[in-house]
Amino acid sequence: MSQQQAINRRIVLGARPQGVPTPLDFRLEETQVPAPGEGQVLLRTLYLSLDPYMRGRMSEAPSYAPPLELDEVMVGGTVGRVVASRNSNFHEGDLVLGNSGWQDYTLSDGRDLTPLGEMARPSYALSVLGMPGFTAWHGLLKIGEPKPGETVVVAAASGAVGAVVGQIAKLKGARVVGIAGGRTKCRYVSEELGFDACIDRRDPQFAVKLTAACPDGIDVYFENVGGEVLDAVLPLLNVGARMPICGFIAHYNERELSPGPNRMPSLLSALLSKRVRAQGFIIHDHYADEFAAFSRDMGGWVTEGKVKLREDIVDGLDKAPDAFIGLLKGENFGKVVVRVAE
Amino acid sequence: MSQQQAINRRIVLGARPQGVPTPLDFRLEETQVPAPGEGQVLLRTLYLSLDPYMRGRMSEAPSYAPPLELDEVMVGGTVGRVVASRNSNFHEGDLVLGNSGWQDYTLSDGRDLTPLGEMARPSYALSVLGMPGFTAWHGLLKIGEPKPGETVVVAAASGAVGAVVGQIAKLKGARVVGIAGGRTKCRYVSEELGFDACIDRRDPQFAVKLTAACPDGIDVYFENVGGEVLDAVLPLLNVGARMPICGFIAHYNERELSPGPNRMPSLLSALLSKRVRAQGFIIHDHYADEFAAFSRDMGGWVTEGKVKLREDIVDGLDKAPDAFIGLLKGENFGKVVVRVAE
Repeated sequence: MSQQQAINRRIVLGARPQGVPTPLDFRLEETQVPAPGEGQVLLRTLYLSLDPYMRGRMSEAPSYAPPLELDEVMVGGTVGRVVASRNSNFHEGDLVLGNSGWQDYTLSDGRDLTPLGEMARPSYALSVLGMPGFTAWHGLLKIGEPKPGETVVVAAASGAVGAVVGQIAKLKGARVVGIAGGRTKCRYVSEELGFDACIDRRDPQFAVKLTAACPDGIDVYFENVGGEVLDAVLPLLNVGARMPICGFIAHYNERELSPGPNRMPSLLSALLSKRVRAQGFIIHDHYADEFAAFSRDMGGWVTEGKVKLREDIVDGLDKAPDAFIGLLKGENFGKVVVRVAE
Repeated sequence: MSQQQAINRRIVLGARPQGVPTPLDFRLEETQVPAPGEGQVLLRTLYLSLDPYMRGRMSEAPSYAPPLELDEVMVGGTVGRVVASRNSNFHEGDLVLGNSGWQDYTLSDGRDLTPLGEMARPSYALSVLGMPGFTAWHGLLKIGEPKPGETVVVAAASGAVGAVVGQIAKLKGARVVGIAGGRTKCRYVSEELGFDACIDRRDPQFAVKLTAACPDGIDVYFENVGGEVLDAVLPLLNVGARMPICGFIAHYNERELSPGPNRMPSLLSALLSKRVRAQGFIIHDHYADEFAAFSRDMGGWVTEGKVKLREDIVDGLDKAPDAFIGLLKGENFGKVVVRVAE
């Protein structure tokens, strides 16, 4: 490392967001690059994944993971390069998947690192071949359980999870209807990803068009947005439908209880009258048991060109806050990855 | 039959209720008692079961069963006596479980009848040993799956379903907390049914007391009421909790969308962060596969005195509308059964 590179830039939680985060909720700091101790490696972050779950970690409210403390470095999955090693399992130059968060350099004892070998597209380890892809695979196949000929509806269909859900569902013989924000994204979903249809959730006729696109009702609804999309889906659910729940981005920025009307009775009513199984899941629970099987499946599909994903690459760590705010507003187009270094 | 008995009184849907039904939504009619054709039996209704699901059938909105037409006889499970038979499978005097609805006499071709033999307490065929008991058994054991030492919470705990859910859960080694309306019902639930605790949902400190009664959180919530009870339960759910959903009486009388705040995001958030499995079910789906197993289990428990149920017996068919309205308001104390004839 040259003298100039020996600065570690990091982005910390500056303030807890009230509603939608603003750039002022983040703070860019510069510190010394640390030196690895015995058994440690020093990692240079190459790619940082930005994902909706990070919004939850910025709040004080307890969730499935403890909240970030103020002044703590923002968390995030990363692809990094080993630049110095005092750990016999890793060598300078190794490419690894880790959790360095929003910063240039980190130390690790290696226990949270996964060697990636040489990859044609290392950033895919943060999307199709990583957490979002695994979320799609587990939620769809282990909870949704689509059968050939059934109708699967996926919201946020151009996003990292939704795009993969739909492509797997197609591989399993289902009819797949995506929902995305705007005509450009919808065209991408139906033309490039091969969904049977994609409905623009901003269309004033959204609910009518979704109904028309699902003439046989909905057997699996992969829930990752909530809000008005869910309202439109509920009346279309078939008896015995399954609803894996992995998030609901429409509500992440709400400070208190949402305004009325109260739609909880509608949800309960749909679950009851259609005998729906709704199941929340947190993908971190399933790495030990299922990640290997996922990697085999998905590695094969990616190599064969059966599953692909558009990436929305943002250049520079300092752009991460704006890119993350845009992600929460649906302004991204594809999986958001920050290229921190080459 | 004497001349005087040859009148069939029946109660029909006179008008669709707006909100809580009123006596004016029902109409008592008198018709001739029909004569059985070849293959038919004539049944005298002895006991009529009143159950919350009937409210749904009075509305025009589509649900899991088609709505009643105006002027149609109110539906309902019944215990009847065969008073004339032209069907070789049934004999005068036989006691049968059927679906005569809110009336004195009906014809049947026998296909919807279950012979009851001689029973010490025929009305139990409408509660513990019938549909409500089966609802409790299936929902708790097939969806709730309580393990010894887990905490099971049951709302409407003095009602036909809730009382049985709690007693089965105790037999399976769970800690059981009931919720009921009023101190009298709560005392019955904890002292006579043997629940570990019972919280009065009308208590201003309801949520605080429920929390105190569930020091290890909630593993199974048997959902049959909705409303504020569910709001208090959600924060207490443990990771991996199960929520069988068989109804939500708090919302049956709502005409349109409930007033805010919108609690759907809270429900989704709880399902996600606690990885909850919520599953609606309609007990009619399960008779063919599971009723025999239920009958064996429950018949044994009732005979051994391990499961019991207080009945709220109402004398006279003409009292059915008021009793049903009272049931929807929670004014009953135990399973509501109308004694139509001796």
